[in-house]
Amino acid sequence: MYRSHTCGELRIEDVNKEVTLSGWVQRVRDKGGMAWVDLRDRYGITQLIFEEGVTAPEVLEKTRQLGREFVIQATGTVVERYSKNDKIPTGAIEIKVSAIEILNAAKLPPFMIEDDTDGGDDLRMKYRYLDLRRNPVREKLALRHRIAQEVRRYLDEQNFLEIETPVLIKSTPEGARDFIVPSRMNPGEFYALPQSPQTFKQLLMVSGFDRYFQIVKCFRDEDLRADRQPEFTQIDCELAFIEQQDILDIFEGMVRHLFRMVLNQEIGEFPHMEYADAMRLYGSDKPDIRFGMEFVELNEVAQNKGFKVFDDAELVVGIKAEGCASYTRKQLDALTNFVKSQQVGAKGLVYVKCNEDGSFKSSVDKFFDQEALAAWAQTMEAKAGDLLLVLSGAKDEVRKQMNELRLHMGNELGLRKEGEFKPLWVVNFPLLEWDEETKRFHAMHHPFTSPKPEDMALLDTDPGAVRANAYDMVINGVEIGGGSIRIHDREQQQLMFKHLGFTDEEAKEQFGFLMEAFEYGAPPHGGIALGFDRLCAMFGGSESIRDYIAFPKNNSGRDVMIDSPASVDGTQLDELQIALNLKKED
Amino acid sequence: MYRSHTCGELRIEDVNKEVTLSGWVQRVRDKGGMAWVDLRDRYGITQLIFEEGVTAPEVLEKTRQLGREFVIQATGTVVERYSKNDKIPTGAIEIKVSAIEILNAAKLPPFMIEDDTDGGDDLRMKYRYLDLRRNPVREKLALRHRIAQEVRRYLDEQNFLEIETPVLIKSTPEGARDFIVPSRMNPGEFYALPQSPQTFKQLLMVSGFDRYFQIVKCFRDEDLRADRQPEFTQIDCELAFIEQQDILDIFEGMVRHLFRMVLNQEIGEFPHMEYADAMRLYGSDKPDIRFGMEFVELNEVAQNKGFKVFDDAELVVGIKAEGCASYTRKQLDALTNFVKSQQVGAKGLVYVKCNEDGSFKSSVDKFFDQEALAAWAQTMEAKAGDLLLVLSGAKDEVRKQMNELRLHMGNELGLRKEGEFKPLWVVNFPLLEWDEETKRFHAMHHPFTSPKPEDMALLDTDPGAVRANAYDMVINGVEIGGGSIRIHDREQQQLMFKHLGFTDEEAKEQFGFLMEAFEYGAPPHGGIALGFDRLCAMFGGSESIRDYIAFPKNNSGRDVMIDSPASVDGTQLDELQIALNLKKED
Repeated sequence: MYRSHTCGELRIEDVNKEVTLSGWVQRVRDKGGMAWVDLRDRYGITQLIFEEGVTAPEVLEKTRQLGREFVIQATGTVVERYSKNDKIPTGAIEIKVSAIEILNAAKLPPFMIEDDTDGGDDLRMKYRYLDLRRNPVREKLALRHRIAQEVRRYLDEQNFLEIETPVLIKSTPEGARDFIVPSRMNPGEFYALPQSPQTFKQLLMVSGFDRYFQIVKCFRDEDLRADRQPEFTQIDCELAFIEQQDILDIFEGMVRHLFRMVLNQEIGEFPHMEYADAMRLYGSDKPDIRFGMEFVELNEVAQNKGFKVFDDAELVVGIKAEGCASYTRKQLDALTNFVKSQQVGAKGLVYVKCNEDGSFKSSVDKFFDQEALAAWAQTMEAKAGDLLLVLSGAKDEVRKQMNELRLHMGNELGLRKEGEFKPLWVVNFPLLEWDEETKRFHAMHHPFTSPKPEDMALLDTDPGAVRANAYDMVINGVEIGGGSIRIHDREQQQLMFKHLGFTDEEAKEQFGFLMEAFEYGAPPHGGIALGFDRLCAMFGGSESIRDYIAFPKNNSGRDVMIDSPASVDGTQLDELQIALNLKKED
Repeated sequence: MYRSHTCGELRIEDVNKEVTLSGWVQRVRDKGGMAWVDLRDRYGITQLIFEEGVTAPEVLEKTRQLGREFVIQATGTVVERYSKNDKIPTGAIEIKVSAIEILNAAKLPPFMIEDDTDGGDDLRMKYRYLDLRRNPVREKLALRHRIAQEVRRYLDEQNFLEIETPVLIKSTPEGARDFIVPSRMNPGEFYALPQSPQTFKQLLMVSGFDRYFQIVKCFRDEDLRADRQPEFTQIDCELAFIEQQDILDIFEGMVRHLFRMVLNQEIGEFPHMEYADAMRLYGSDKPDIRFGMEFVELNEVAQNKGFKVFDDAELVVGIKAEGCASYTRKQLDALTNFVKSQQVGAKGLVYVKCNEDGSFKSSVDKFFDQEALAAWAQTMEAKAGDLLLVLSGAKDEVRKQMNELRLHMGNELGLRKEGEFKPLWVVNFPLLEWDEETKRFHAMHHPFTSPKPEDMALLDTDPGAVRANAYDMVINGVEIGGGSIRIHDREQQQLMFKHLGFTDEEAKEQFGFLMEAFEYGAPPHGGIALGFDRLCAMFGGSESIRDYIAFPKNNSGRDVMIDSPASVDGTQLDELQIALNLKKED
């Protein structure tokens, strides 16, 4: 038996018990004939105490061999501490050690295994298995586990069945690039890895499973970017005989449940925001509504005053930074530089200071007199002391730019508070979006998304205006996930394919098996996919595979085991060439 | 709102309620001005009733359009049935329908959606999404969900953390063949798919996670055989600071918990059986102990009596089929043919009938008199009426053959009862096994498996006799899973590599990163991996991906979406060739 208790378990009530603990040596102190060892495991830290003349000499001898991160087993009596440590749950007691065993020695770790470590990122990544011993890193993984458990518990209670869909599938036409897996057993043939189980889950609805979910790995052969991993985990769900509102209720309920269970927070009901309003008021389909600073459109008051930049613009739009009229020239220059940076890409920034004395000072005083500026201020409901920031240009572009500026101001003014959570649903996304490259409309979500019945008439006259039964869950400016009510009627689906520019043959080739299934009694259905990595990150848990996997890096900084691909050996390459039909078998 | 209740929900207490149900039309009966529709969903079947002169004509009209598997919505009043159907939970009521809507029409399905369908295997596979509507198939998937939930709940309560390990990894040297995934983003570089998260979980132990588990997909680029799928699911676990007995207790507890929760059965404690005893008594490391019929070695009583076949044999071994002395010539011939079949491969079968009158009749009466046969019977503790079946030959071979014969007799005599479960632990597997091809010892489990300390001395003198801290869980003759206590000491690991014939360079090349991690304080640890597919099959749940995925087959019988690889298009092939560095990018 390696231990009777963990290192996080013993309390003052346990005094006088004979116990055995195992763990890692966090720290050894040796002073005036006394020695203390902080023994650490996943569950906590317990102090061991040794005393010359009391502790057996051979135990003391072993204690003096201990180094940081040695793995030991210690047996002794629980005693009350003289000077208690109220920062740790075991701080009232210590163990008077009678026997000690070194289970494994350890080389001196290259950085301290402490909450605030002295290891830089490179060193921590190289010795990831040691970094993972630190509390903040380990807690992220534990939190991810807790969230997954709670998601499963909630969905199980809601009658969802978790059904595993295959990882080795056939390549399907979707947005990103599939990973292709040559089968060495079947030369010239290939599997693909799924970008999502979309078609599987729709088939499961046709099969009558009613409520499906899966916490599932998905794959995209894309560049490693900050928010795009080649493999990522999603909470994938589909439901039959439901309407949009049912789905919003269930998954809003799930996230509320998580906030309650994990952070002990009540986050209330999720407001619904029309996609069109989100774009108009925040310039983004994933607005951070922890703070206001909504866009105000100024075309009426700011155009036709002789300022060509505005007059030529499709949209003149402003935000109001409360209490920022005192911004210095330097601060305003910094804002101008920010909007002109590559990240934002605006041509320039117009500002108006609403001075305390009721006057206005703007960067366009040449074109706008006090009365004109007062009209802006009135439109924007500005008070003395406020700063107005105005951008202009083509509508879609300027909204994107203003979104960046708004978030930047939110950061500057500390309005995007950590620990505060403001979720919402963005609803009624457009069904189609225009693609300049191919000069045709594409499905914004996917070709199975159903249009709003009341907008169907617009399909022929103004396709871009047709709204879909599609929705995104957004928290603090992060798109946690989204979904839609699907088309379940074959005729409507064919109409949709036509509008998406598919010929009958193309539609049959790409989606024939699903269309065929739909002929045998497909129920009304819809679903949602939530990014599990993003959801975990929202709670401070592990957000990506890079975060949570114990993989060491080699000296050139490359992962030894995962995530960055590597070369294969000659035999494997030979076999792959055979699999690709580029070479005959011997 | 598509429904107020499901089709499995309404009871006699609900009479007079106005309800709306949605589902599939199971059956329509129309007789004497009355019509009945059985409406089905995942949760059950509810009867709808229509009556000329009572039901509105337009509702009746729609009802007459209904065909099997139409998706409909019906609203009406719950009424008590005149003739109740006590075979279904809703059998006391029916719905007097006031409104009906056809949500989706359906083509006539190619087979009946009933528990005993008229669809043959091919048809059911081609229309898998319809086959999955049948109760027995759907229930298998629901059971798999339930088992996964219970596994997670149990392990969570035991302080295990579920940690996702990556699917895109680097190729590692293991038994089977890795799937290799070319990265099109990084030409010339490759990922591999994991055969198991073995190294990841051992690193997690070094990281102090203490108790890890994962229900995880694993991959092998192997032939599709009955019990080998290219992707399969395993319950993968690793624990620190534990001994073999702890692991056996925890996972025996888990399986007991599952039997209790899922089948409401108490299966009691798992007996432990030495590997050596399993081989000696059952000729198998996964004995089916639902019945006895243990092997009895007969060398002492059967050799040196002039029967050359026995005299030349390394092992003479018998089993006793109780009450089978009455077997006819035909039955005995059939048994002889069975043991001589390719599947078993024995040269012949010796039998002894223990007649009711105390005499013996054997197939070797020429060599053995009544007294000699009486000695066999005594050794085998046979009674009058029993039949002794005896094989002889080289020890390992004859044990395998006798195992087949024993299982065959078990089947014939109905001793392998469905619904009866006899689990056991097979323990103390050999550490090494001799490989004739390479003429050296290989790790039976894997090179990190620890030897029994008391057997260490044998490593130099008799390596094949060294036992490992390795164990398998076996239920009803099926190996559900297995594991081992790992080596955590670097020196012992190096000694092991030496005995496995690795040079220092080879060991470093293949396992260097793990060995390096072990230098920084590796705790004693061990683990287990249980085949989730096999475990589910044991409970009558879905056992393989072929079983539970809604994939249609095309007319030539190939899967449209999964499981059998397919060709890729020209662009993809081009990109793969670039990825394989066989072709330059344009």
